[in-house]
Amino acid sequence: MIGKKTWIIPDGFLQPKSLGEQISHEAVCVLNLSNENAVVKLTFYFEDQEPMDQFQAECGSNRTHHIRLDKIADLQGNLVPRGIPYAIKVDCNVPIIVQHSRLDTSQEALALFTTMGYPIEQ
Amino acid sequence: MIGKKTWIIPDGFLQPKSLGEQISHEAVCVLNLSNENAVVKLTFYFEDQEPMDQFQAECGSNRTHHIRLDKIADLQGNLVPRGIPYAIKVDCNVPIIVQHSRLDTSQEALALFTTMGYPIEQ
Amino acid sequence: MIGKKTWIIPDGFLQPKSLGEQISHEAVCVLNLSNENAVVKLTFYFEDQEPMDQFQAECGSNRTHHIRLDKIADLQGNLVPRGIPYAIKVDCNVPIIVQHSRLDTSQEALALFTTMGYPIEQ
Amino acid sequence: MIGKKTWIIPDGFLQPKSLGEQISHEAVCVLNLSNENAVVKLTFYFEDQEPMDQFQAECGSNRTHHIRLDKIADLQGNLVPRGIPYAIKVDCNVPIIVQHSRLDTSQEALALFTTMGYPIEQ
Repeated sequence: MIGKKTWIIPDGFLQPKSLGEQISHEAVCVLNLSNENAVVKLTFYFEDQEPMDQFQAECGSNRTHHIRLDKIADLQGNLVPRGIPYAIKVDCNVPIIVQHSRLDTSQEALALFTTMGYPIEQ
Repeated sequence: MIGKKTWIIPDGFLQPKSLGEQISHEAVCVLNLSNENAVVKLTFYFEDQEPMDQFQAECGSNRTHHIRLDKIADLQGNLVPRGIPYAIKVDCNVPIIVQHSRLDTSQEALALFTTMGYPIEQ
Repeated sequence: MIGKKTWIIPDGFLQPKSLGEQISHEAVCVLNLSNENAVVKLTFYFEDQEPMDQFQAECGSNRTHHIRLDKIADLQGNLVPRGIPYAIKVDCNVPIIVQHSRLDTSQEALALFTTMGYPIEQ
Repeated sequence: MIGKKTWIIPDGFLQPKSLGEQISHEAVCVLNLSNENAVVKLTFYFEDQEPMDQFQAECGSNRTHHIRLDKIADLQGNLVPRGIPYAIKVDCNVPIIVQHSRLDTSQEALALFTTMGYPIEQ
């Protein structure tokens, strides 16, 4: 089984400002090499408020899903808040591999960063 | 034996647009510290289509190869598609170390990101 | 228990120059998934002077804290020096997950980088 | 003992072009938490030529050293070549922690990337 069922990303932030053609965003990029459909649950942790834990996405077997955090909504239709720091926990029913990337277009030119998530041993 | 035979990179994307002197691209950077020639197989996974698994590159003993994903073609001559998200699995006959980097020149100035691949234990 | 109590970040630098709306800074981003309040101690190592080890921050249970290194002061009121290279050791009373990011706005447009900290096994 | 004695960085490149106030460069950032002086040996691997293995730097106990790859010279006075891809192996007499970063100022604004090195288990 390739990958882990839980991954952590401490540095999340949706830049409120965008310049140029591309919108500032983040993506949680998942690869599912198992034989089953992956149900991916995202929990967002904040500095001064309770976690939001009703976000869910899917990823088919032998498929990738670059989950856009500026687009995903939870079961009540809430979006991930822009302009405040958060951290992310990714939980899945099957082992997956998780990478997190940010695109920031707030200042004349775009900036990018990425890192593998931190895998949790079961 | 230094390195692993399988590595995963969930966040792949070839930016279609380039400005300035440098073309937007990605590279899978391999170091081969074994005594044998390395045959590197790349499989690309997508969100809505079957994987492409006929890409191959080489890397000599005590050599590096920064495999350009905007240039590599598969056995049928297909290129990696630009403008859609993908993930990458790297398989090799010998242990290697893999890092993945992106150069994006779509908006007035270049942006860079990099991460080590996620190594799979055998 | 998710995470580790000690993390290392070798590449720290507070860019002295800032252009545009955002100030150049770094953040040590912490997620605390334990049931206790986290007391986070930061030690800064330099190339030519003794370490500074009197910096402290907190992070509640099920909270994140993106600790801004341009704002934190030690017990004597000293700031992290700008314009010289440093490395960081993060120690905590409970297991946490640590990521480090830099925002540099010194040259017309912002630049970003990030990496997970290097976790120390206990 | 915190850290490892050998680290790998597959993606090295010294951008030949620089614009603005800062020169394009890379740094191998080392933290030495041992009680001894660290002697750091750097080997550079290329795509089409033999490795260069006569580069050496030092890092004191409880000190960091951000080794600038655009400045270091080997025992014969050779510099790391600009404009061609390379990979780096870092070997040390004591355990250290290694991070690698690139600053690119070739196109109107700077770009940054970073990653932890890949640690080799002994």
